[in-house]
Amino acid sequence: MKKTINIGLAGYGTVGKGVMSLLLSKNEDLSARAGAKLRIKRVCDKKFADKEKDKAGARRLSEQNKGDPGLLAEGKVYTPDIEDIFNDPEIDIFVELIGGYQPAKRFILLALERGMDVVTANKNVLAKDFNELLSAAAKNKRRIYFEATAGAGIPIIAAINEGFCANEIYGLAGILNGTTNYILSEMSSGKAGFSESLKKAQKLGFAEADPTLDITGGDSASKLAILSSLIFKSHIKPSDIYTQGIEKIQPFDIKLGGELGYTIKLFTLMEKVKPEQGKASAKEGVTFQVVPAFIKSSHPLASVSGAFNAVYIKSDAAGEQMLYGPGAGSLPAASAVVSDIVYSARHIMEKSALHMPFFELKKKPPRIADAREVESCFYLRFTAEDKPGVLARIADILADHGISVASVVQKDGFSPKAVPIVVLTHEARTGDLINAIGEIDKLKMVKEKTVYYRLLDI
Amino acid sequence: MKKTINIGLAGYGTVGKGVMSLLLSKNEDLSARAGAKLRIKRVCDKKFADKEKDKAGARRLSEQNKGDPGLLAEGKVYTPDIEDIFNDPEIDIFVELIGGYQPAKRFILLALERGMDVVTANKNVLAKDFNELLSAAAKNKRRIYFEATAGAGIPIIAAINEGFCANEIYGLAGILNGTTNYILSEMSSGKAGFSESLKKAQKLGFAEADPTLDITGGDSASKLAILSSLIFKSHIKPSDIYTQGIEKIQPFDIKLGGELGYTIKLFTLMEKVKPEQGKASAKEGVTFQVVPAFIKSSHPLASVSGAFNAVYIKSDAAGEQMLYGPGAGSLPAASAVVSDIVYSARHIMEKSALHMPFFELKKKPPRIADAREVESCFYLRFTAEDKPGVLARIADILADHGISVASVVQKDGFSPKAVPIVVLTHEARTGDLINAIGEIDKLKMVKEKTVYYRLLDI
Repeated sequence: MKKTINIGLAGYGTVGKGVMSLLLSKNEDLSARAGAKLRIKRVCDKKFADKEKDKAGARRLSEQNKGDPGLLAEGKVYTPDIEDIFNDPEIDIFVELIGGYQPAKRFILLALERGMDVVTANKNVLAKDFNELLSAAAKNKRRIYFEATAGAGIPIIAAINEGFCANEIYGLAGILNGTTNYILSEMSSGKAGFSESLKKAQKLGFAEADPTLDITGGDSASKLAILSSLIFKSHIKPSDIYTQGIEKIQPFDIKLGGELGYTIKLFTLMEKVKPEQGKASAKEGVTFQVVPAFIKSSHPLASVSGAFNAVYIKSDAAGEQMLYGPGAGSLPAASAVVSDIVYSARHIMEKSALHMPFFELKKKPPRIADAREVESCFYLRFTAEDKPGVLARIADILADHGISVASVVQKDGFSPKAVPIVVLTHEARTGDLINAIGEIDKLKMVKEKTVYYRLLDI
Repeated sequence: MKKTINIGLAGYGTVGKGVMSLLLSKNEDLSARAGAKLRIKRVCDKKFADKEKDKAGARRLSEQNKGDPGLLAEGKVYTPDIEDIFNDPEIDIFVELIGGYQPAKRFILLALERGMDVVTANKNVLAKDFNELLSAAAKNKRRIYFEATAGAGIPIIAAINEGFCANEIYGLAGILNGTTNYILSEMSSGKAGFSESLKKAQKLGFAEADPTLDITGGDSASKLAILSSLIFKSHIKPSDIYTQGIEKIQPFDIKLGGELGYTIKLFTLMEKVKPEQGKASAKEGVTFQVVPAFIKSSHPLASVSGAFNAVYIKSDAAGEQMLYGPGAGSLPAASAVVSDIVYSARHIMEKSALHMPFFELKKKPPRIADAREVESCFYLRFTAEDKPGVLARIADILADHGISVASVVQKDGFSPKAVPIVVLTHEARTGDLINAIGEIDKLKMVKEKTVYYRLLDI
């Protein structure tokens, strides 16, 4: 029986350092859980081409690990050359922490071909090529683990695959991007506007130097693609997801929503028309969206603030479930990577490579419904002249499109010529709402583009 | 290779029916996940001694399962005699849903001896005899699964064992009893007092006819014992837990706390003095408590309302994590039981009985610290004469015990002779606070026993 599991780790950045630190400092306990000694055989990073950095890093790590000199073979461990991992027949698990798309994808596929299990934190590759990677793992009778790709240390992948295996998950609402959630929390507290909050997030290390992918919702979409692919056991691509960012959110709407008992968040949403609720089978389907939306301030998701993440799930047996935790960071992400390493090691020890992992059950893909098909209550803010008859005209057009008004709040204006009118609607089809707003915005008395957000009822 | 996993289920009550329903309606999917056909071979319940009930139940179930007549062998399946399970050499998994202490415990041990894996939802037996059951499983090279013992369908056992395996969990705050949480939520909404809320909970089926174990905190203590035993890999007994119920909570304090930005909950708490924070090694230890306490209303735990449960965890790598879901109910509990059946079936299929499950790593028990050692901020309500000098006298005694006051609120009294004075303190040792209150309550000007609750800072 194999007594040592050898690990080859690629990418010695923030997460890589966290993984090394956990594997070294908790080696005895983790090895006991894995049923085999966990040994770091190779660590590959381009920066190790610089010999001095290499030596300093190795010295620091071997100091951390004085009690167990066999764990890291000093000098040989650090390499700038990925082939030192792939050509080492002793390596059982390839840990991919390079990030980005290529060459990470090529390396993952190569590792599977060489008979290694793969543990990865790479949301880009998984979201784009979910089926290809899982098929490659199955073909090579290996496994691929990716708990760290969504929600960092939150064990959401395991929960969907295993804990909720007796459930149909028919709804998901996630807060999956720490940067945007931090910015919105700052804006909601009334402390700062968008650019100031972004700068603060960057200063605190929550936001990247180039935060485009966070701000525009792209990062959230990748994570939603991965979770949805797991739920439907069929690849849901980022391009299947209607994605909207937070750039245009105005502090005024956050403030007003707050007064009405709502909190704004950037949500990743999967919504299913449940068979028993569907009116005609042609209308059944699933929508995938990343959109800013309001939620009642008393809802658990509203209290997910700062750089925290959460995934709220609606399921037919376990009911409404939520998992919550830090959305990023060296150790939270490493916590997930290391639990995957332990899972992988256990499976290698149990010689159960032929057993089908949960996420390889292929299902027929769902019909992906248009975001315009979603029914929801809405927050609308019109900016119109302060004249008699304006509200009546707006209400008429809404009524023409089958949208009924639940309440109206008129506020003092920004300028004497235009006052904000806030309307909360009853449930309406998104497409109908967009059409109504299109008409309303053409009215002469309406002075600005109408702002609208969903009022999530989950 | 074994292609069918035979299940013997004992206890056909609320949860048992939910388990049967999930196993029957989702058999194809669950069997695919398990890697073997999941077959219900025997269902045992005393009530099947009544032949008519037996026949009616069997008829209903075989109708539910028309497509797959092999799944349930009608007539033979239902039995009032537990020996029909234990004497059946084909049964692989014993599902214990009888509840209570005996005979459930005897049955669990017997099943392990007969070479069956055990899946149980029995918090009483697990909390009392954690080590004995786990040792019996190990001795017989079998496994025991108990995800449903705490938090129903919330996958908290798996998260502690596997998802957070790279973490030291040094703090836990749980809301683990749906009945008390429902009552406190009702009281907090100002709709009703204690007895009225309890009656409503009973009417809605959240509370038992005899709710003593819920109300006094005993049920929460059993669940905390199980989670803590997992965390420390050493048996923490219900008797190790300082337990206080919700019977004495007055609507007045809930209302006042609410105005100050706090929400009251019945918390199950595990608190560890972290080595680096400990002042002297003699003082290091862990406290286990079930106590009503206030928490900031903006905290995610404050939004856990009604019959929902949550477990909030503080860990050294993954940080602060929370899992949230319904705390009881037929299908939520069945969701956990069925995921355990799938885990068990997979492990039987993989023939990995010799592999050490996570929760058998035995560790030295922690030093269990007295609840009086805990440091916390507090909410205090004194009821005193409305005379000059009263507050000064109280503040003096608090100061003598090293307790410093953060803020004071004086409210209109219940009676002209006694006014409530609410004091929020800075951090203080619980023991010092109890001593101070003891002195204060002896003052002539103090008219009622002083009420105090912790202000949890997590």
